[in-house]
Amino acid sequence: MLSRTINRVVSSIKPSSIVRMSSTTVPAAPTPTADAAKAPKAPKASKKSKLQVSLKTPKGTKDWADTDMVIREAVFNTLSNIFKKHGGVTIDTPVFELREILAGKYGEDSKLIYNLEDQGGELCSLRYDLTVPFARYVAMNNIQNIKRYHIAKVYRRDQPAMTKGRMREFYQCDFDVAGSFESMVPDAECLSILVEGLTSLGIKDFKIKLNHRKILDGIFQISGVKDEDVRKISSAVDKLDKSPWEAVKKEMTEEKGQSEETADKIGEYVKLNGSLEEVHTILSQDASITSNELAKQGLDEIATLMKYADAFGIDSYISFDLSLARGLDYYTGLIYEAVTSASAPPKNASELKKKAKSVEDASEYVGVGSIAAGGRYDNLVNMFAEASGKKSTKIPCVGISFGVERLFSLIKQRIQTSTDIKPTATQVFVMAFGGGKDWTGYLPEKMKVTKQLWDAGIEAEYVYKAKANPRKQFDAAEKAGCHIAVILGKEEYLDGKLRVKRLGQEFADDDGELVNAADIVAIVQERLSQVHEDGLDEVTRLIKGL
Amino acid sequence: MLSRTINRVVSSIKPSSIVRMSSTTVPAAPTPTADAAKAPKAPKASKKSKLQVSLKTPKGTKDWADTDMVIREAVFNTLSNIFKKHGGVTIDTPVFELREILAGKYGEDSKLIYNLEDQGGELCSLRYDLTVPFARYVAMNNIQNIKRYHIAKVYRRDQPAMTKGRMREFYQCDFDVAGSFESMVPDAECLSILVEGLTSLGIKDFKIKLNHRKILDGIFQISGVKDEDVRKISSAVDKLDKSPWEAVKKEMTEEKGQSEETADKIGEYVKLNGSLEEVHTILSQDASITSNELAKQGLDEIATLMKYADAFGIDSYISFDLSLARGLDYYTGLIYEAVTSASAPPKNASELKKKAKSVEDASEYVGVGSIAAGGRYDNLVNMFAEASGKKSTKIPCVGISFGVERLFSLIKQRIQTSTDIKPTATQVFVMAFGGGKDWTGYLPEKMKVTKQLWDAGIEAEYVYKAKANPRKQFDAAEKAGCHIAVILGKEEYLDGKLRVKRLGQEFADDDGELVNAADIVAIVQERLSQVHEDGLDEVTRLIKGL
Repeated sequence: MLSRTINRVVSSIKPSSIVRMSSTTVPAAPTPTADAAKAPKAPKASKKSKLQVSLKTPKGTKDWADTDMVIREAVFNTLSNIFKKHGGVTIDTPVFELREILAGKYGEDSKLIYNLEDQGGELCSLRYDLTVPFARYVAMNNIQNIKRYHIAKVYRRDQPAMTKGRMREFYQCDFDVAGSFESMVPDAECLSILVEGLTSLGIKDFKIKLNHRKILDGIFQISGVKDEDVRKISSAVDKLDKSPWEAVKKEMTEEKGQSEETADKIGEYVKLNGSLEEVHTILSQDASITSNELAKQGLDEIATLMKYADAFGIDSYISFDLSLARGLDYYTGLIYEAVTSASAPPKNASELKKKAKSVEDASEYVGVGSIAAGGRYDNLVNMFAEASGKKSTKIPCVGISFGVERLFSLIKQRIQTSTDIKPTATQVFVMAFGGGKDWTGYLPEKMKVTKQLWDAGIEAEYVYKAKANPRKQFDAAEKAGCHIAVILGKEEYLDGKLRVKRLGQEFADDDGELVNAADIVAIVQERLSQVHEDGLDEVTRLIKGL
Repeated sequence: MLSRTINRVVSSIKPSSIVRMSSTTVPAAPTPTADAAKAPKAPKASKKSKLQVSLKTPKGTKDWADTDMVIREAVFNTLSNIFKKHGGVTIDTPVFELREILAGKYGEDSKLIYNLEDQGGELCSLRYDLTVPFARYVAMNNIQNIKRYHIAKVYRRDQPAMTKGRMREFYQCDFDVAGSFESMVPDAECLSILVEGLTSLGIKDFKIKLNHRKILDGIFQISGVKDEDVRKISSAVDKLDKSPWEAVKKEMTEEKGQSEETADKIGEYVKLNGSLEEVHTILSQDASITSNELAKQGLDEIATLMKYADAFGIDSYISFDLSLARGLDYYTGLIYEAVTSASAPPKNASELKKKAKSVEDASEYVGVGSIAAGGRYDNLVNMFAEASGKKSTKIPCVGISFGVERLFSLIKQRIQTSTDIKPTATQVFVMAFGGGKDWTGYLPEKMKVTKQLWDAGIEAEYVYKAKANPRKQFDAAEKAGCHIAVILGKEEYLDGKLRVKRLGQEFADDDGELVNAADIVAIVQERLSQVHEDGLDEVTRLIKGL
């Protein structure tokens, strides 16, 4: 009967699901990725089944488990507490959107969107970020203002670099402010949240590269770039964090049809970076800038921002960097991204790329990239309102997005040697000691005691075995990281007594205390409050780098 | 410049993404769903754009926001705390799996799986539940035993019934135990978790329908069902919660080729239900059952379970119901599901179905269905191990899954009139009062004070306006549900003083207290500890039904 079930199920696996092991015609057929390291390299046919299933997660994705999961959850908690501190409310949107909602929002990167198969019905795609669904939500519900945060997975069919935290499925932690407010006030708050978020995660050596789309567009106008060429020249500038100016200039002149003179003029500006004040002063003294309407607007906003960045005490983190362009289409004002020393690719990246062992994973020759980024997008909500036939509406937005996997890869480097984090919350282990011919093992009795603890909210486990020897029970308690043992002694239990014992090496010689079974919950609660007296949460301490 | 950007983006929306408003050939073209109620019914062309985008979420999905989100998050917290209490560790698997992983696991329901488009590379599908990815994870990592919980979204292309919490994208909250243990011990713990979970959510009128696949399969053997017909007869039995016995019998005899006699014999058994003890006694006295190897095995396990259900004090919730079959292929032992009075469809369901206004949503004529369900699946992990060419391995599993949206719909009915839940965590509102020609509004000064509160971990907001009048500031504070105002008075602030005032009607006549600006953090912390002295969390109280 059982084996029949197995056979039936296995035989219902369609031939198309067999791993195409020698496929050459199908593009990017499944090949081992970094994740697949734990899976067998060359699956062998078992006796029972000739069919092969590839036991791995899809390319660019991974399972999260164990202490990694504990650390990542602590990162989420740290960030969501900051978002709540700033008055944020949270929303949850579907993982997929109607395809038309995502269309035309991501420039050249639209090719990285995952589509759902057309199975009859609506055409849908997995979300690429949380910003576009947020703008859709605001437009759909006619929301006039909101501070919202959203921690959720997004999807990009990009080249993965798993150990650098660059994945195809990854979390974004976003805080956005929608609504018409005093200029630069929500923008400054997003920058403050960026600083608070990173410092709370123990990341100290970061800087915020900041620029303004209007200043950048003004520079392009001044330099003689035609309106229709602006975005493609902007995306050339965006490469300056990876490529030298000469390469970018070549792209502008040879591939993107700009004159030598235009490129050189752009080059003068985009080399500028420094504190907000320094670069603001230089640009304010530049008559071409101050006489260009767009650039002047941007410059005035920067002046306003300087006051607020000073009030928040975050100005020292900011580098006003005219080479920052950011790829996304929807930004209209301030743009910014946080980088650390690990963000840039290795110096000999192109050499490493040639030598790379994996064609499926770029970890060997890329950097972590930006660890948080954002900006102002004042037209996106209205774009949805208008395209859906609603009344035109002006709902300016600004936001910040943290890349959790990238942050995780930095945090993990710092604390990877620690063994102090445990994946369970278990505090108490319930054991039974006895022996002799008539010894039942007290399994239902252990269950009764444990249930009392559970009902009082206490994390408790016991060994799933009728008669477990003491050693195995202590081992299990240690593995679960328990602080206290509650012991049912064969005779003691019959007298209505339980033994409560602290666990841990320093209590090895302590036999514990015999207490009334009726008082067990109160006594365990008291012992646990002693254990946790120092009030320090190990994960939080490790994450903060304390 | 701005309008150029809008035009560029809008014009890049492909024609294929235009809503097919009069499509008749495309199956199930987008039509308004319950969700779309807020979207315009017939989008009108705006002046600027002739293109139409449907401003809605995909069929069977919805946005979660505001207090609904607060309630749902509290449900997650309640359940995950219970899972942690039982020693659970959490994992996170990708939203999509290789398609071959899901193949052949869900019987007839496999047609409900969402596939990702073949964009070159691996063929993937959205997960249908959390159980199959868990078994894949256990097999892939050669895990011998684990208690894991997982709270995440799953996807089913089913007929939605949104107000009943039956959706295409929905959360499952799963706790599973993998590993070889004493018979029925982890099973009993899963049932205890089921009871703890539902009672913690204030759901009291539920019962757990419980059956055993081996007993059911034994009954089919006894009644003369051939081995190859077992699963299809099982799925006929599974309909007994919606259809009368006569209809099920007709399906067995007329559609599924069983004899009248076989059907009648099955009918005798599947009508049996009662307490574990009652039904166990009846079956134990039935020689056909006790002489059938499968049924006998199942019956012995039920006897063992009875001891443990008694130890956990959960026996009164259980109804041993031989009509419970459960649809999924992978169950091999105990199966169970929790139902309440809202689970069943309305009595006149078929009549209501005919009259139903929506063809896209079944809310008018279906019930909430089961609110939690699970069972034992002893072969699934090995199926993956063998199919991937690994050594055959026996990792028995048992688990329980809570349907959060369905639970939410029950909880929401109970507390929908409450206005005590607020979506923000904000505690303090920072205000500035002043006036006269030289009044600046103290915006950067408010920022400085607020930043001190943030740095101390205090949730604080202020109005994003240079000069806001007092009324507007108090209104905003009230809307955010703040308990305390910190006020920068024009003169007082210059003297190094801030005013701290309790908010709320009962403090309307209280002008607050003037304090030293240097002490503000400590003073606010003390005031907040007074506010929260009662220690009661409103959401938790409402959810628990206290």
